[in-house]
Amino acid sequence: MIKKVLIGIVCGAAVLTVGILIGHFGITKGGSSGPSWVEDVAKDVDQSLIEKFLSEVDNIQIQENLRELTKVPHMATTAGDEQTVQFMLKRWQDAETGLDDAWREEYLVYLSFPDPKNPNKVTVGDPSDTVLHAIREKEKTYNPEEDDPAVVQPYAAYSPAGHPKGKLVYANQGKPSDYQVLNQTVDLRGTIAITRYGGAGRGAKAINAAPYGVIGVLVYTDPLDINDGLMSDINETYPHSWYLPPSGVERGSFNVQFGDMLTPYLAAKEDTYRIPAEDITGIPPIPIQPIGFEDAYILICDVKLDIFNYEEVKNSSNVMGIIRGSVEPDRYVIYGNHRDSWVHGAIDPSSGTSVMLELTRVLGRMVKQGQWRPRRSIIFGSWGAEEFGLIGSAEYTEQYFAKLSERTVAYINVDIAVFANATLSASGMPSVQNIIFTAAKQVDAPGLVSTSVYDNWIKYSNRTSPAHGVIPRIGYLTGAGSDYAAFAHYLGITSMDISYTYDRSKTNARIYPAYHTAYDTFNYASKFIDPGFLSHQAIARTAGNVLIQLADSLVLPLNCSDYAETLEDYLKTAVSLYEEKLESRKISMGKNRGAGDATMQRDTSVRAINDQLMLLDRAFLDPLAFPDKYAYRHVIWASSSAGQPTFPGLADAFANADLSGQSSDWNKVHYHLSVASQAIEGAAQTLVDLSDLP
Amino acid sequence: MIKKVLIGIVCGAAVLTVGILIGHFGITKGGSSGPSWVEDVAKDVDQSLIEKFLSEVDNIQIQENLRELTKVPHMATTAGDEQTVQFMLKRWQDAETGLDDAWREEYLVYLSFPDPKNPNKVTVGDPSDTVLHAIREKEKTYNPEEDDPAVVQPYAAYSPAGHPKGKLVYANQGKPSDYQVLNQTVDLRGTIAITRYGGAGRGAKAINAAPYGVIGVLVYTDPLDINDGLMSDINETYPHSWYLPPSGVERGSFNVQFGDMLTPYLAAKEDTYRIPAEDITGIPPIPIQPIGFEDAYILICDVKLDIFNYEEVKNSSNVMGIIRGSVEPDRYVIYGNHRDSWVHGAIDPSSGTSVMLELTRVLGRMVKQGQWRPRRSIIFGSWGAEEFGLIGSAEYTEQYFAKLSERTVAYINVDIAVFANATLSASGMPSVQNIIFTAAKQVDAPGLVSTSVYDNWIKYSNRTSPAHGVIPRIGYLTGAGSDYAAFAHYLGITSMDISYTYDRSKTNARIYPAYHTAYDTFNYASKFIDPGFLSHQAIARTAGNVLIQLADSLVLPLNCSDYAETLEDYLKTAVSLYEEKLESRKISMGKNRGAGDATMQRDTSVRAINDQLMLLDRAFLDPLAFPDKYAYRHVIWASSSAGQPTFPGLADAFANADLSGQSSDWNKVHYHLSVASQAIEGAAQTLVDLSDLP
Repeated sequence: MIKKVLIGIVCGAAVLTVGILIGHFGITKGGSSGPSWVEDVAKDVDQSLIEKFLSEVDNIQIQENLRELTKVPHMATTAGDEQTVQFMLKRWQDAETGLDDAWREEYLVYLSFPDPKNPNKVTVGDPSDTVLHAIREKEKTYNPEEDDPAVVQPYAAYSPAGHPKGKLVYANQGKPSDYQVLNQTVDLRGTIAITRYGGAGRGAKAINAAPYGVIGVLVYTDPLDINDGLMSDINETYPHSWYLPPSGVERGSFNVQFGDMLTPYLAAKEDTYRIPAEDITGIPPIPIQPIGFEDAYILICDVKLDIFNYEEVKNSSNVMGIIRGSVEPDRYVIYGNHRDSWVHGAIDPSSGTSVMLELTRVLGRMVKQGQWRPRRSIIFGSWGAEEFGLIGSAEYTEQYFAKLSERTVAYINVDIAVFANATLSASGMPSVQNIIFTAAKQVDAPGLVSTSVYDNWIKYSNRTSPAHGVIPRIGYLTGAGSDYAAFAHYLGITSMDISYTYDRSKTNARIYPAYHTAYDTFNYASKFIDPGFLSHQAIARTAGNVLIQLADSLVLPLNCSDYAETLEDYLKTAVSLYEEKLESRKISMGKNRGAGDATMQRDTSVRAINDQLMLLDRAFLDPLAFPDKYAYRHVIWASSSAGQPTFPGLADAFANADLSGQSSDWNKVHYHLSVASQAIEGAAQTLVDLSDLP
Repeated sequence: MIKKVLIGIVCGAAVLTVGILIGHFGITKGGSSGPSWVEDVAKDVDQSLIEKFLSEVDNIQIQENLRELTKVPHMATTAGDEQTVQFMLKRWQDAETGLDDAWREEYLVYLSFPDPKNPNKVTVGDPSDTVLHAIREKEKTYNPEEDDPAVVQPYAAYSPAGHPKGKLVYANQGKPSDYQVLNQTVDLRGTIAITRYGGAGRGAKAINAAPYGVIGVLVYTDPLDINDGLMSDINETYPHSWYLPPSGVERGSFNVQFGDMLTPYLAAKEDTYRIPAEDITGIPPIPIQPIGFEDAYILICDVKLDIFNYEEVKNSSNVMGIIRGSVEPDRYVIYGNHRDSWVHGAIDPSSGTSVMLELTRVLGRMVKQGQWRPRRSIIFGSWGAEEFGLIGSAEYTEQYFAKLSERTVAYINVDIAVFANATLSASGMPSVQNIIFTAAKQVDAPGLVSTSVYDNWIKYSNRTSPAHGVIPRIGYLTGAGSDYAAFAHYLGITSMDISYTYDRSKTNARIYPAYHTAYDTFNYASKFIDPGFLSHQAIARTAGNVLIQLADSLVLPLNCSDYAETLEDYLKTAVSLYEEKLESRKISMGKNRGAGDATMQRDTSVRAINDQLMLLDRAFLDPLAFPDKYAYRHVIWASSSAGQPTFPGLADAFANADLSGQSSDWNKVHYHLSVASQAIEGAAQTLVDLSDLP
């Protein structure tokens, strides 16, 4: 059904056309034979502008942005958050380096906080309820900023309040299999499970536990997972290195779905209908609390959790800024990052926000000085309440669903701009691979002589492509790790996520160690993550270059034959994993269909070609394919638990049917095969010659 | 929330723009200052072409088309159906009057037939099972064609086979309220209900009956509903008039959903996953059979049904034909009608097919002779298996979902072209009102001197519009009565349905009396419906004119301020019906929001404006708003049982909550208010100034 289907002809047309168009529109370049708007229509990327942009992006500006953004903790909807809103607005409304327009967009969203008057407690008692040990309520401080009263107590957002008490059992990572194995030897009823971060989502550790009768969950950060085993704050951990001090606790949002949970698919405005809170799915059914490894190592006996979290609907702001397009104002390139942090958030997210502000400063000034105006419109989004479940970006996509779906060319996400300063890292739809490569080749690698970001990258992470040979490996955007999720999975907009990251030969840290802790400060970032801010500068240059090229190119630089290459890989994986079993059940994976050659007709306009490219990902959407997964509609990139690099619906349905053996489950495999097949054929149909009618 | 919301600015931009564009593109008209493709881009409707088209549309050609199409019964997937496929292909592939290309598109679809070897029986017996009366198995014949062995026995498609026997009870129209009332005085368990056509959908008459224990249903055509009370075939009914003979039986499909029921949302191709037949919803749970009023009037005592219907997956063909666009080949105007009938189907659907063939003959010749090529592409669809539930058109929209969604400008449906010859009748999205008016003003009314179709129409059906004064009334496309359903409700494509119809002062017939009977023949059509075929000609001219204008206009002739007028009416109705009760439940219907003035920037291209217009209806889609209604996604036009001319989801939710009083039902009212509000705001957002960014 899918096999060797139309993938072969995917995007022959668009590729062919670039050449034709360049000839076609070339007639007006430098001449004066046509009306002036013909020149506008034929406007393409100006390489001297790229050079000017790259030279003006300044590392010290980024450093100062970060210093300003991280003065105080700025958790979503707090006074510190409002301070960053004002700062963004001031910068984007600046007369000399601001944007065409900037404003605040507010949503009333459902958040969860610890109660400052009743801090959450975890205590160890003996059978007579004598408290033998109380877990620390705040992280140990090494620098004054960590002492800010606005530092929120470590907590699990959306954990219910409650006071469970029970014997402690170690449940590894809190995966379904962890509890299953444990349950074979231990009666889990009435116990408190202690788990370590990783392996399963935060909320999943509690959701997986509850069916076994577990009444509370602790989650700690294991030094092996985050600190390459180092544990001592006398000389090994921060402030001596980037490693997490023993008392550091990773905060986080413990919900599974993204977007405001009271208003699924609707923008969370004042009048909007809100579902009853008891109808929310995907949140912990039992209290859960994160702790540091210092405390995790001494827990014994009975443990009591006193969790006082409460929920509240609060006003959260996105800050929006725009540069209007000159030729196609109704085509949008969106660049975004969240603004809210858990504490000071120097890396997460302020590294990305500092980079965004430097981009807008350089581009804004060019616009204000009349040196440049992009062909297409650029929208900058500083999203609110990401840490609570990508809320600001999700609400934005719900509110402007139709307009964004119809007109958005691509979304660029730069959240944590610099995890570490070894190499570029990028994920995205395969069609953006080429434009990221192009941009990365034009940027110098930080701290290296005569080496481009691209040349450095290919040394750290590469693969062999049938079409291109050895190239850097870009990842798949299959999860919901940052604000690209609503753009990629809900709207079906071609998206990418860009950062600088680790040398994996030097650390096994699951993520940078101060992640979501009180130690994620300007001091930490400037001392241990990117002294000199050269990696930040490289990200600003690379991502900004991608942005300019997407906004200015005559023909959109999205390469759909690279998409086809990935789909072929998906298909090969599916055939090798599933074909035999499916054939034994008389479910056919497909038949050969002829691949046609596409020839363009000359009258085709550049806008028509660009529409084909812009709408390619939209063609993969199926709003009914994953009814249980909030906002996942993209048949190729939806999240999957099967862990196979192939069609996610098919992979999950197969894993499920293979386990249960039930024929209704095999029907679902066949169903997802049809869904994927129809989506791919439908997408391919949008890419063939424009005069080829359905 | 909805109240006085952005409706005010809906489409200010597009309206303003027409003038600007005409000035903008005018520079190239008649001059040679620009490259030749500039002239193509600025190409607009040629009025002399319209005149040529109107003069060449020939009533006798339509008559001969109809004669050929109705030679034999052509029920879906029968030999007669294949004969019409061949005929369409021959005509559309003709070297002199054919189209650019034409082909067959096949689907394997789930149909239901009576068993020719075991005809369905309805018998009246006494308690000892002696047969007192057997209902006729075939209609009485008056002309040789009605004797064709291919005339299918009257039956209810998708009625289960079965042999129920019980006391007959009269259940009026088989509405829920009919059974409810009846159940208060009669024990319905084990009875056979006899119902008359009308009031409830065909399948609903059995679906509504089953919960009361009814074991079988008969449905007859009441002479008061169809024949203005006339009953005698000696001198009153066909062949003496257009009225239905006593033995005439209306066949029909008794399913509620449309499209192939085994492959919801998937094109019914060979490999496609099919749901188990027992999972189909919306079909009669008990046997049901249609009968004529001759038999209905003599039924007494116990009645036995012997229904031998069976289901089968069969190959059904759409025939597709295209004319490629010259300037915008990737913009489609689709014109369609189904091809399959229940018997000879001279009116339903061959009147429409004959009209379509005349359109394609005239347009095809212009193209073949090089006199014309439309600006946009035109797709003609001759759909298969409509009578079984709009199957051919629904499968087509499923197969080409993305491509059609992205590129289709409008869908024109002409199914029964002529119900009667009094006046034009049209339904559609309000944005098509103006183009239908324009076309109807250019066509002479059949049989009248110096009177246009428009002038005649306004006498029969009119309303007063705040913007336009007294104008003909066009209906809403809220149901699924013909093949526009999948285009309007599933794809959200601006659609219309056009026909010639009754003088309601002369007949109360529910529909033309031979509808779905063996008497719907060429003889019937040419003698009683449209002698001389002048009304057919008027429909060919009017619908063809609409088609040409949609295909050739520089700026799409879709008027969104007329859409706004209807939305205002919807809103007024909603406020007057619901506001008081909603406010008492603290659900706000909205607040005033400022209406901005839209100003266009000159660089805006005609394609960008047209995209706004083309995609307006797409912006109203919400695939999750009506989870129980197959393929209904259009928030404004979805079917509704509340019978109020306002937002359908809101109206149904309100009726339900008002009845139950449950707070969860009032929540659903609030939810649908939010859904409608967000859809309207989202649509309005797509219509404001193109440089106005979200």
